[in-house]
Amino acid sequence: MTEEQRDRLLLQLEIDQLNAAYAATLDERRFDEWPGFFTEDGRYRVQARENFDRGLPLALIDLESQGMMKDRVYGVTQTIYHGPYYTRHVVSPAQVLGEQGGLVRARTHYAVFRTRPGDASEVYNVGRYLDEIVRTPAGLRLASRQCIYDSEMVLNSLIYPI
Amino acid sequence: MTEEQRDRLLLQLEIDQLNAAYAATLDERRFDEWPGFFTEDGRYRVQARENFDRGLPLALIDLESQGMMKDRVYGVTQTIYHGPYYTRHVVSPAQVLGEQGGLVRARTHYAVFRTRPGDASEVYNVGRYLDEIVRTPAGLRLASRQCIYDSEMVLNSLIYPI
Amino acid sequence: MTEEQRDRLLLQLEIDQLNAAYAATLDERRFDEWPGFFTEDGRYRVQARENFDRGLPLALIDLESQGMMKDRVYGVTQTIYHGPYYTRHVVSPAQVLGEQGGLVRARTHYAVFRTRPGDASEVYNVGRYLDEIVRTPAGLRLASRQCIYDSEMVLNSLIYPI
Repeated sequence: MTEEQRDRLLLQLEIDQLNAAYAATLDERRFDEWPGFFTEDGRYRVQARENFDRGLPLALIDLESQGMMKDRVYGVTQTIYHGPYYTRHVVSPAQVLGEQGGLVRARTHYAVFRTRPGDASEVYNVGRYLDEIVRTPAGLRLASRQCIYDSEMVLNSLIYPI
Repeated sequence: MTEEQRDRLLLQLEIDQLNAAYAATLDERRFDEWPGFFTEDGRYRVQARENFDRGLPLALIDLESQGMMKDRVYGVTQTIYHGPYYTRHVVSPAQVLGEQGGLVRARTHYAVFRTRPGDASEVYNVGRYLDEIVRTPAGLRLASRQCIYDSEMVLNSLIYPI
Repeated sequence: MTEEQRDRLLLQLEIDQLNAAYAATLDERRFDEWPGFFTEDGRYRVQARENFDRGLPLALIDLESQGMMKDRVYGVTQTIYHGPYYTRHVVSPAQVLGEQGGLVRARTHYAVFRTRPGDASEVYNVGRYLDEIVRTPAGLRLASRQCIYDSEMVLNSLIYPI
């Protein structure tokens, strides 16, 4: 195996570490740290698979910068009234789809489980991340993360980021 | 760490990429591409854990070549009448069990979630892949994939490949 | 990428292999092998997230040596009367949190599914492993594994290790 092939494979590991840190940040409710996984003009979208597949624009959440993400976090943690629940992300190893001009495209399947107080855990939202990732001096950052979810019926409402 | 040890570990990454591509192909319903993950005389079996553990031959699906897989895909997409549903595979990192004579044995735990139109996502089928993998000029291919599932009650019927 | 950076990333793969072997051992009911994943004075704790987050000591299971784990296995397999069920662990790629003095700290998100005879599979327990791992001549071993679970209502009772 050449050094280049090795480094191509190792890129998967770097993305796996990014995904694991991202999941832990959300599940441990350190929401203030969540926008930091993105570039300053990063994009975050949560969209139903049906709309994505048909090229329809409607998305459940569509944030176009870190600033909008910080607003969202403020809304979620300070102003929205909702029943409390825990989330747990379990993700597959990432698939590196390609790299061009410093932008890595990757896809990762995820399952998010929800646990409400005094209740059993349940499947909450499953789907795939479609990512564009850039390397910065501080490490890998998401230039764009699309969460394309299968789940047509979103349980109650989706409050926390996926 | 020696080069050989590194390459042994990196083999896990190659299999993880294979598993991720396999899962995406099924979940994105590109069923025509599914037989291409196997060698021409590749084996695909879906068997209940109970039968597997006791060495019983009965399997839910048992296909012995790419040709049989293509027939199955034709049946699933063209002739079988069934309620539509989405699938989502979430898999653990693969465990490389050994390599002998160019054949790599690996095991991967999987969960498949099902989403029916207008419904919440649910656990559909969980189990383990037991694989024999060969390296070809076109990349890794499955000489054999056994899907050994825990789920004794298969929800409705299992239509799409696992 | 330097050799050191490569080896840091490869450490994730070694832990992924450890986690995969651990999961297979439990799910294939080879319980006698389970204590062997730990050091002789290894620690195994299963604790509700709520107690962990508040720094409360109460844990569902707290074993302080391989000896105690062997006792537990004996109890589970020989003396406790309970309805039979299968488990299936699906885990994310591990996140390596740091390494100091030969002790690697890592975190892994897990989901355990349960299947009872004649029934559909269901979400059983989800959470995170918080591990301290040491390198021994025989490979990586757990000096400590804490299973911090979200699931407030443990379905029936938790019999087998997580």
